[in-house]
Amino acid sequence: MKIELLDKLRQKNPIAFNISNFVTVQDVANGINAIGASPIMSEEENESEAMVNISHSVTVNLGAFTEGQLKQIAAVTKFANQYHKPIVLDPVAVGAVKYRLDRCNELLDNVDVAVIRGNAGEIAALADVEWQAKGIDAGEGDADLEAIAKALANKRNCVVVLSGKTDIITNGQAVIRVYNNTDLFKLHVGSGDMLSSIIGTFVAIEDDYFEAAQVAATVFATAGEIVANQMQVPLAGSFGPQLIDELHLISVADVEHTAQFD
Amino acid sequence: MKIELLDKLRQKNPIAFNISNFVTVQDVANGINAIGASPIMSEEENESEAMVNISHSVTVNLGAFTEGQLKQIAAVTKFANQYHKPIVLDPVAVGAVKYRLDRCNELLDNVDVAVIRGNAGEIAALADVEWQAKGIDAGEGDADLEAIAKALANKRNCVVVLSGKTDIITNGQAVIRVYNNTDLFKLHVGSGDMLSSIIGTFVAIEDDYFEAAQVAATVFATAGEIVANQMQVPLAGSFGPQLIDELHLISVADVEHTAQFD
Amino acid sequence: MKIELLDKLRQKNPIAFNISNFVTVQDVANGINAIGASPIMSEEENESEAMVNISHSVTVNLGAFTEGQLKQIAAVTKFANQYHKPIVLDPVAVGAVKYRLDRCNELLDNVDVAVIRGNAGEIAALADVEWQAKGIDAGEGDADLEAIAKALANKRNCVVVLSGKTDIITNGQAVIRVYNNTDLFKLHVGSGDMLSSIIGTFVAIEDDYFEAAQVAATVFATAGEIVANQMQVPLAGSFGPQLIDELHLISVADVEHTAQFD
Repeated sequence: MKIELLDKLRQKNPIAFNISNFVTVQDVANGINAIGASPIMSEEENESEAMVNISHSVTVNLGAFTEGQLKQIAAVTKFANQYHKPIVLDPVAVGAVKYRLDRCNELLDNVDVAVIRGNAGEIAALADVEWQAKGIDAGEGDADLEAIAKALANKRNCVVVLSGKTDIITNGQAVIRVYNNTDLFKLHVGSGDMLSSIIGTFVAIEDDYFEAAQVAATVFATAGEIVANQMQVPLAGSFGPQLIDELHLISVADVEHTAQFD
Repeated sequence: MKIELLDKLRQKNPIAFNISNFVTVQDVANGINAIGASPIMSEEENESEAMVNISHSVTVNLGAFTEGQLKQIAAVTKFANQYHKPIVLDPVAVGAVKYRLDRCNELLDNVDVAVIRGNAGEIAALADVEWQAKGIDAGEGDADLEAIAKALANKRNCVVVLSGKTDIITNGQAVIRVYNNTDLFKLHVGSGDMLSSIIGTFVAIEDDYFEAAQVAATVFATAGEIVANQMQVPLAGSFGPQLIDELHLISVADVEHTAQFD
Repeated sequence: MKIELLDKLRQKNPIAFNISNFVTVQDVANGINAIGASPIMSEEENESEAMVNISHSVTVNLGAFTEGQLKQIAAVTKFANQYHKPIVLDPVAVGAVKYRLDRCNELLDNVDVAVIRGNAGEIAALADVEWQAKGIDAGEGDADLEAIAKALANKRNCVVVLSGKTDIITNGQAVIRVYNNTDLFKLHVGSGDMLSSIIGTFVAIEDDYFEAAQVAATVFATAGEIVANQMQVPLAGSFGPQLIDELHLISVADVEHTAQFD
């Protein structure tokens, strides 16, 4: 894995355009900024082309799900395809709400995305596999998670990141597993949103999206683990700012020393 | 008081649907998650029925106050009544802005709510009592706060939580007082929003809403007091993440040991 | 410089109405509260007059940039002029997106503002000076920043705060420079938004807007420097809550002791 992409990211400082989940937008912007990219956010359809033009990648989070935002997302993703800016899609809660699943599938029928990042319930729903999602959480099921992730990657011709205790990253053939050795990500709302946007910063500077997604997931998992290792007890609230601290401080050597993947 | 409801909450891990105040939504989601429930948020009317269906309670915060959101709130609360999911209402700034008071009273004329949680200025306005509110803050007045809270509880046939230095919780007859021995809640924007949403998690697992509201207010007050007791000086910013830390760490024994109520 | 305005602010505790950047609204509200004012936020045009009426100043952040919000901003700023409540304008990203620049100039053609606070790229764009902005960041250019700030102040007949490593504050003739001796403001998304809203609290209690803007920028810079001086390494995430801690704790004597300006 090319962990040194982290240095390239910081040197290039790309502009990462995000249509964000309104619940977690502030944390996500700070995470993007801390790791070494420049976040820009918008909710206005009329500036779609200009925003895509100045940006190096586009991350679309379906936590932003009003009718107005869906129109903006349609416009932005069309321009992103036209101007060859890679798209990262975060399909929030499509495993729990059929209305969201239908809108998300319509979007995926119309645009090409570089990466889809979701939890097991979300990826299973998009791959048409039975699963029991629970609200915004992954839920539980018996299906083989690697097979689900591969199925979606092949169906939508993109990289899939199925995140959880173990992140499964696949281009449809190869699979990389990144191990998250802390439960604190689950205790912090927006960890998944932040991971999606961090992937958005790496696809902005690396055309091999499978490589970019692996490195993003590995850096993020390692930052979280370093923070968790410094805590005596799990601090659900302090984890947020400290994760952002670490996203700024973490070096290629830190990741190489601590990360666990295969 | 059945403090052990805290253990039941964590065991059941209910889904708490929130139409949130855009100012404080991230903190509120993290507070819900930390105490042991699953938050889900939406701003889209079209998914109202689906969201109510998968949830165990609905918290409506009138900080979300655009015309579009009022339509969503009307739809969501109607479905909540239909599917017997308890509603917690937070009437933000109805004490300061007559437009808000009118919209809020219209809503209360049309739906049954389980709990209303507000500050003195907001509860007084809904109870038609003279009071001098100050923006989003409670303001000052001479009226008897317990009488005001009871009047609103009887008018709207619900539990009322009038929060402040002392939280007054009433079902219209009985009154419980919970003492908040710290000013840090007031220094942190969104403490009231978070309390309303924490009440939303308890009514999701306890049909006696008066009991649920008492325990929620007591757990929340105690968590804040434990955090404050660990500070040499009042840290207005650090209080936010540390309160979320404590909402996750606090045990029934901690509450029983520290809480003050009568 | 009348640093003692900080004591006056805390004594008067004005209501600061903010139309906010959705990315950073929670931090901004906490910053306003911590320094000693009462924040109130709204996204609804129908309550514009009521909100302006109860408030002592209006801060408009163009991170809030949907068509609906532009209508609300037009209504709110018109009422603010009518009721003589000073307006602070934060022209987010007008240096990077022409659509934003055009809407912002339309607004400035129609209303009188007390203070414009932006980074070099934003102020240069509003002053019609060539500059290379970078997304939401200031970017780079060769122009003389003091001349740019003065040009805009004279063009729009207001105080201009061009913030960056050195904050340049001018009424079109005189110039005050405030030195920010830390890079942490740049690492924290929303530092500029927060500065604009802090200026909004000072113009609420001091009719000399040039004086008010200077003191606001100086208090804010000093709070950040005090926080930075307590860190061994730059903590991009912890800086946020600790800055809010310090905005509450900082005294006139602290500012007089540490601030650097000329």
